[in-house]
Amino acid sequence: MLLQLLDYLGVAVFAIAGSIVASRKGLDFVAFLFFATLTGIGGGTLRDLLLDVPVFWLKSEGYLLVCLGVSIFMWFFAHIVEGFGKPLRWADAIGMSAYSVMGAAKTLSVGDTPVVAVLMGVATATFGGVLRDVIAGEPSAIVKSEIYVTAAFVGAGGFVAMKAFGLSGWVAAAIAALLALLLRGGAIEFGWSMPGYKNNKRKDT
Amino acid sequence: MLLQLLDYLGVAVFAIAGSIVASRKGLDFVAFLFFATLTGIGGGTLRDLLLDVPVFWLKSEGYLLVCLGVSIFMWFFAHIVEGFGKPLRWADAIGMSAYSVMGAAKTLSVGDTPVVAVLMGVATATFGGVLRDVIAGEPSAIVKSEIYVTAAFVGAGGFVAMKAFGLSGWVAAAIAALLALLLRGGAIEFGWSMPGYKNNKRKDT
Amino acid sequence: MLLQLLDYLGVAVFAIAGSIVASRKGLDFVAFLFFATLTGIGGGTLRDLLLDVPVFWLKSEGYLLVCLGVSIFMWFFAHIVEGFGKPLRWADAIGMSAYSVMGAAKTLSVGDTPVVAVLMGVATATFGGVLRDVIAGEPSAIVKSEIYVTAAFVGAGGFVAMKAFGLSGWVAAAIAALLALLLRGGAIEFGWSMPGYKNNKRKDT
Repeated sequence: MLLQLLDYLGVAVFAIAGSIVASRKGLDFVAFLFFATLTGIGGGTLRDLLLDVPVFWLKSEGYLLVCLGVSIFMWFFAHIVEGFGKPLRWADAIGMSAYSVMGAAKTLSVGDTPVVAVLMGVATATFGGVLRDVIAGEPSAIVKSEIYVTAAFVGAGGFVAMKAFGLSGWVAAAIAALLALLLRGGAIEFGWSMPGYKNNKRKDT
Repeated sequence: MLLQLLDYLGVAVFAIAGSIVASRKGLDFVAFLFFATLTGIGGGTLRDLLLDVPVFWLKSEGYLLVCLGVSIFMWFFAHIVEGFGKPLRWADAIGMSAYSVMGAAKTLSVGDTPVVAVLMGVATATFGGVLRDVIAGEPSAIVKSEIYVTAAFVGAGGFVAMKAFGLSGWVAAAIAALLALLLRGGAIEFGWSMPGYKNNKRKDT
Repeated sequence: MLLQLLDYLGVAVFAIAGSIVASRKGLDFVAFLFFATLTGIGGGTLRDLLLDVPVFWLKSEGYLLVCLGVSIFMWFFAHIVEGFGKPLRWADAIGMSAYSVMGAAKTLSVGDTPVVAVLMGVATATFGGVLRDVIAGEPSAIVKSEIYVTAAFVGAGGFVAMKAFGLSGWVAAAIAALLALLLRGGAIEFGWSMPGYKNNKRKDT
């Protein structure tokens, strides 16, 4: 019950991030719906297609209704929600952290290997946002130096590693999600970024 | 038999719209083939992947051959076809309207819920074109204010709603497709568009 | 054994081409990993999803580990690898040629038709690179006039045609891959390109 609620909360947070792209571009309501749904369920959909399990929102309408509800709400209040700049980014960070662990956990639960589980965790947490940015014609988190995909990687990888070392699922999940959240939080609060590849290495050699 | 013919016609119309992107950019024949196929079968392919039913063109080569035929035809006559600006947009509107209903109907027929059916109708009708525009580096129908995705939404939603209210499949399909077509037709003839989200709301509050 | 090695080699070559996009943009290590994996396994993943067979890297971790290894290597040596401009393009050409034939062969082996097999061969050989370019915000091979997708088409189509005319699988595969490689090689060495659609035809008619 609590888990289900957390799951809906994750979809809702991502849907909000999606509809904000539509509001910033001044698009119509159907575009709000499109971007909210794409961002909210895109990552988990890719994960389920690749794992060849039924797509999670097919048999459980709640997820799509959450995206619909968020779109309606945001159609009226996007300008107010955007006012909460930093709280919103923290909310998105919580969604990303939770999903990186949940994506990895679902993959392990259907019997796939740890390496695959890490990849799936990252995909679940980030793919919806990447699709949204590509369709909106904006640079996605992949090509920005700010820490985002890296934090998803730490969440998924940390969970899989701790499980391999024998920690119980819930403890591993909590620690891994917290690690991912702290890393992403550092990027939000202090602008943490990963070192980029130095193109000018070419000159040095 | 008639249905099959209509289905091929839908793919053909979308394939034409795809190959025109290639002709406008002055690309080679393989690009004609690529964009014709992507646009022609993209939406239905996504629908079938998500529903976990066999992709519709896997066992029935006709669809791919239609895309091939359209590409060859367009390679020689794209400049003439483009001359029919408005008729062509109407043809595309017919394809979109028919597919929004067919996508929803196929989803209901495999036992999924009405909410999912609406989403699948919209996806079938619009996803091929969105993919085409993203790969061609052009703004897709999602980010334009002109009514397009909205009409697909009305077609799929109208069909599902009328079915739920007990109308027979054929009547519901005909009315819903007509509604979608009229809405899209209004956009073509009179430039109908949906109201966009006003960014300057922020100033007012 | 040798086949498996060739398969890993193909993934590695594509992964290198992917990570070079990350190095050119000066991105961080996770972006190297992302682009290497996307380019390395993207085309084959689409093929397997469409064919509804288990995605090839799900049960066999080697492929993902190859992408990881390539990313680590490239993180330190991308500037040197890029120095080998032409050899690198030839390596990519070998990967593309081999995959166009392997994609078509896998499709025939699961009982699908020749037309579908050609499409799948082209998709396997080119889709990873197209995704990479779309996400990186660069023009993909589809919209360039240089021969690339065309060569994949010749590889997949040639293989399917020769099989249909009764040649044994290995002979057909070798000849088709060689044809694709020669065509792509001509583009690399002599700038071969396909004639584009002439937009100014409109003026002539």
